[in-house]
Amino acid sequence: MTGTLFGIGLGPGDPGLITRRAAELIGTVPVIAYPALDGEESFVRSIAADLIPGHVREIAINIPMTVVREPAQAAYDRGSAEIAKALSDGDDVACLCEGDPFLYGSFMYLHARLADRFRIEVVPGVTSLTACAAKAGMPLAARNGQLTVLPGTLPESELERRMDVADSLALLKVGRHLQKLKTVIERLGLLERAIYIERATLAEERICPLADAPESAPYFSMILIQGTPDPWL
Amino acid sequence: MTGTLFGIGLGPGDPGLITRRAAELIGTVPVIAYPALDGEESFVRSIAADLIPGHVREIAINIPMTVVREPAQAAYDRGSAEIAKALSDGDDVACLCEGDPFLYGSFMYLHARLADRFRIEVVPGVTSLTACAAKAGMPLAARNGQLTVLPGTLPESELERRMDVADSLALLKVGRHLQKLKTVIERLGLLERAIYIERATLAEERICPLADAPESAPYFSMILIQGTPDPWL
Repeated sequence: MTGTLFGIGLGPGDPGLITRRAAELIGTVPVIAYPALDGEESFVRSIAADLIPGHVREIAINIPMTVVREPAQAAYDRGSAEIAKALSDGDDVACLCEGDPFLYGSFMYLHARLADRFRIEVVPGVTSLTACAAKAGMPLAARNGQLTVLPGTLPESELERRMDVADSLALLKVGRHLQKLKTVIERLGLLERAIYIERATLAEERICPLADAPESAPYFSMILIQGTPDPWL
Repeated sequence: MTGTLFGIGLGPGDPGLITRRAAELIGTVPVIAYPALDGEESFVRSIAADLIPGHVREIAINIPMTVVREPAQAAYDRGSAEIAKALSDGDDVACLCEGDPFLYGSFMYLHARLADRFRIEVVPGVTSLTACAAKAGMPLAARNGQLTVLPGTLPESELERRMDVADSLALLKVGRHLQKLKTVIERLGLLERAIYIERATLAEERICPLADAPESAPYFSMILIQGTPDPWL
């Protein structure tokens, strides 16, 4: 009997936003896997730290911070090989994921490598998207409202083209793209409605109008822009 | 001391997808509020039924199923007045919400009526969006991928215009709009990539290619269409 791979969304960072199913799985599986960036302490492991029993085996997948494909591919190859070994030995493996595994999550690279050979269950988590909206007190969409989710990594022209026709907007992965995003937002006349949120639900959380945002933003930051107000409000 | 209003996302339906913070609040507040459609049993209450202590006060907000504004407005007026009374009496109130309170949730109508007078904390929940993706085994977006969320209630021309330029797509509130959506999807050549999901995470869950979907869909149904495959996969 081979084991099951659980891809578990842990939410944006507040351990209270872990689901009951996620907590139960973390407390019972014999092997826990998670990504760690460039040998640093794993952020996602810290979210669930209190739930991880002392005796479990841990697989840290060391992901190089890179914009080129090959070194990242090699890291996921190594990580999935180690997970495959545990699954083949009959052990269930819980892979911890920030936010939700399938919304800009690196779990999909493991999923792509293992789904044809092993049983996989994805446990959805609270996304940073709705966590940021909750903390900012900003409804994302109602009734006929529309929501467009764009990564800040897109080229300026592509961002402008998409944002110009969007209703409500969520711009993720702001980080070093903050000034580019701010330029486009100002040009489209959206600055007054734009809210900046960094490290939502963590102790270091910061929320302010985008106009008052700091010069540089961490990777875990987001800009929300509310669309047409709901006519029913 | 007035009480705090908690807008609590309970996720798509599986009680396991309730967050620990939501479970804790439901078990401790003295008043619980929730919408019920046209006097039917409240779906959202059923998600949390096991967590609701026997001695709490319950406020059922009876929402008429209508596409006109006034009767719904009146229902939210009555519900928010009853909640305001409890908060003014010093009681905390937990309002139960399907999915996430700020993503197509009716909680925003209470929020709009009460946020200027009372302390409100929104507890984000797992959205049907990522729950459906998890169940369908379909990553929503990676790296430079984009996600557009549209309600099936939009007019056909508007849907077509939006869908034609979108990357990954989530079409919510399919219900009685199924045939209209299918027509647009076929016209845009997207039928082969479209997945139909109804009642995700519940016992009656159904997932199939849109081409094989039933003639009629319940309100809690969704169509997911994957965009450009991630070049890193």
